[in-house]
Amino acid sequence: MNLHPTEMNPWPHIVVVGGGFGGIELIKQLRNSAFRITLIDKNNYHTFQPLLYQVASGGLGADAIGYPFRLIFRGQKNFRFLHTEVKQIFADQQRIETEAGNVDFDHLVLATGSTTNYFGNKEIERNSMPMKSIPEALNLRSDLLEECEAATRTSDVEIQKKHLRFVVVGGGPTGVETAGSLAEFRNTVMKHDYPELDPKLMEVFLVEASANLLNGMRAQSGEKAKQYLEKMGVVVKVGVSVSSYQNEIVVLSDGSELPSKTLIWAAGVKGQLIAGLPESSTVGSRFQVDEFHKIKGIDHIYAIGDSAGMITADRPKGHPMVAPVAVQQGNNLAKNFKNSLKGLPKKPFKYNDKGSMATVGRNKAVVDLPSFSFGGLMAWLVWMFLHLMLLVGFRNRVVVFIDWMWSYFTYERALRLIVRKYNVTPTASES
Amino acid sequence: MNLHPTEMNPWPHIVVVGGGFGGIELIKQLRNSAFRITLIDKNNYHTFQPLLYQVASGGLGADAIGYPFRLIFRGQKNFRFLHTEVKQIFADQQRIETEAGNVDFDHLVLATGSTTNYFGNKEIERNSMPMKSIPEALNLRSDLLEECEAATRTSDVEIQKKHLRFVVVGGGPTGVETAGSLAEFRNTVMKHDYPELDPKLMEVFLVEASANLLNGMRAQSGEKAKQYLEKMGVVVKVGVSVSSYQNEIVVLSDGSELPSKTLIWAAGVKGQLIAGLPESSTVGSRFQVDEFHKIKGIDHIYAIGDSAGMITADRPKGHPMVAPVAVQQGNNLAKNFKNSLKGLPKKPFKYNDKGSMATVGRNKAVVDLPSFSFGGLMAWLVWMFLHLMLLVGFRNRVVVFIDWMWSYFTYERALRLIVRKYNVTPTASES
Repeated sequence: MNLHPTEMNPWPHIVVVGGGFGGIELIKQLRNSAFRITLIDKNNYHTFQPLLYQVASGGLGADAIGYPFRLIFRGQKNFRFLHTEVKQIFADQQRIETEAGNVDFDHLVLATGSTTNYFGNKEIERNSMPMKSIPEALNLRSDLLEECEAATRTSDVEIQKKHLRFVVVGGGPTGVETAGSLAEFRNTVMKHDYPELDPKLMEVFLVEASANLLNGMRAQSGEKAKQYLEKMGVVVKVGVSVSSYQNEIVVLSDGSELPSKTLIWAAGVKGQLIAGLPESSTVGSRFQVDEFHKIKGIDHIYAIGDSAGMITADRPKGHPMVAPVAVQQGNNLAKNFKNSLKGLPKKPFKYNDKGSMATVGRNKAVVDLPSFSFGGLMAWLVWMFLHLMLLVGFRNRVVVFIDWMWSYFTYERALRLIVRKYNVTPTASES
Repeated sequence: MNLHPTEMNPWPHIVVVGGGFGGIELIKQLRNSAFRITLIDKNNYHTFQPLLYQVASGGLGADAIGYPFRLIFRGQKNFRFLHTEVKQIFADQQRIETEAGNVDFDHLVLATGSTTNYFGNKEIERNSMPMKSIPEALNLRSDLLEECEAATRTSDVEIQKKHLRFVVVGGGPTGVETAGSLAEFRNTVMKHDYPELDPKLMEVFLVEASANLLNGMRAQSGEKAKQYLEKMGVVVKVGVSVSSYQNEIVVLSDGSELPSKTLIWAAGVKGQLIAGLPESSTVGSRFQVDEFHKIKGIDHIYAIGDSAGMITADRPKGHPMVAPVAVQQGNNLAKNFKNSLKGLPKKPFKYNDKGSMATVGRNKAVVDLPSFSFGGLMAWLVWMFLHLMLLVGFRNRVVVFIDWMWSYFTYERALRLIVRKYNVTPTASES
């Protein structure tokens, strides 16, 4: 590898692992600084995770929410991209081992994000569908469409119901939004394009172990989201967890059994760690960092975003695993790197919580601001506007805007190609 | 399966295998007729094949050129779709066996299209990349991008060249258009987004066994396409074929050796047959049909488009395997079905050849009309306009138009996510 031009070689080398919200903010802020920066990611693109569920339900294309790193950082002279997977950190040697070879660093920033947490349940991990990445969302889309097709290939109503029953686990924003978009799929696509199926055969369940939906938000927002979902026909079960999922039957903790081909697991995430650092540098599933983002007890290595646990008196569990935290941490760490060049003191991180929001469906969303909450059409418009603005790249904003307008006025989901291998279960023979 | 409502049951059942240009034209024309129609296809979408190469080179999204059948035929009451693969025809029983069970028919239309022809060369079939379907085009796109990434992970110039040398085989429209779009990729994306690579390291070869490119068109159009390609930096080799491709070395019939990771096979197609009919009903790789599209010696079974060989005195090899033939045949067969209900005589098929065209790159295309040929910017505009009009679905026309305008003004290919599994070959260890 020849990561940086020779004339830049005296500049300190910052290696960033992971190009999520935190990683790309950090690199952008270091644009005109005297650092060499190498981004390592196993994907060649940034994923705008908040809209993954819309890719899954056929409302948006994968290319609308993924953006190639090389395009984001085009023209940034101190930037290089290395498309590979990271294997291990050798902290003492200031070196990181990747599938493509070793890379030496002066500073290492772990912005590795989070991964689906099955809480050790291997059975659910094997049989359920996660939704943390673009390929996973595309798989879910192909599955959703293929289950509809499969239901048309049988006359047995119980088998049809099993194909068309979707169980979403986890009442956080992802679960709420996924359940909502599945219900919309039924009310629009199913109704129009599957005349041989009764739309009522399709059922969407949302299962949440705690007593409320959207626990990160105010109670009234969770309650409002529940009302919206129920109005759209989602069966919301709170205070209930999944006991098992095998032989295509979801068993819930209240004893009920739901025969279903598709369990969507949105019940938890955990920090994505990398091998090589001592256990004392982690807290739970995250790297433990100080208020300057440096990993505890280790020099030159930092963590930001979902994979960083910054434990303070008022935040004993660290910050929430959400995009604004990652962006603000990336921004602060970049400032501190630049300050270090100028001999200025570092700034401790302080999270500025601007609120949170979730969308449920057409004209329905909930928004929590620091001072008050609101829902309905206004919340939905705010949600759309903010997400458009947060998308990376002007082209993607245009594409998403067009697709949203399209869906809004046509009640349509246009992205419905089954491009993954499909499974056909032979059924009754009939003309 | 419960393919059609009971009230339609006395209507004759037409089963159409394959939803390409011929199949969808036939079904559209039978919209308000007293037939029950079932389309069987292994994909749930129609593929606009003429633009596959733009999906491969990152100019268009898969969803822009694929369109779900259920959306095309929404509201067509006599239409049903069966998403499955066909296994065998039982002509005497008027029954077709599919992976999802048997389907009885009154009339069967085989609109199965064509498949890549490797002319028996298993080695090339194993190692080369075809481009006849959307998943294949997406694979080629991921491969193109991944080869560029791989080239950045090594400092060995010979290995870089092997990653970046693309050999396109076949001088028909697909080969010409693919080679042109790869050259454009180098001149735009490579130049901007891979500062660590010299764009000259990327080489595009177009290999054609006969003496000319675009043999279906006038000699001057083939010559013009060759000049365009060479101006864009493609190495065009005519009168040369591929002798072998193993160990990542393409050996040509003139003895030259081209180390290359990617051989794109666009050198031939053959009709896609289905098991069950006697050999006497085929001619070469196609079903032999009479001028009313009926398969020779078999009642109630028809073939249209690429899979149909209609041998006449002035067309000893049948019609060319192109979209306009398929559309016109689908149209004529639909008319004959409708005439049969009214007791009117059948119309023999007559091909109306309106000309042909191929595009090479920005502002460069060639058009053959029955009376004259032209090239350059005007041909390119005509090509774009006609392809936009031929696309299925208003949404896809809008999306393709926007993406084309985007690429034209930004010199950009925006669709560059590597979503397939990538392979990483470990290389030298270096910072």
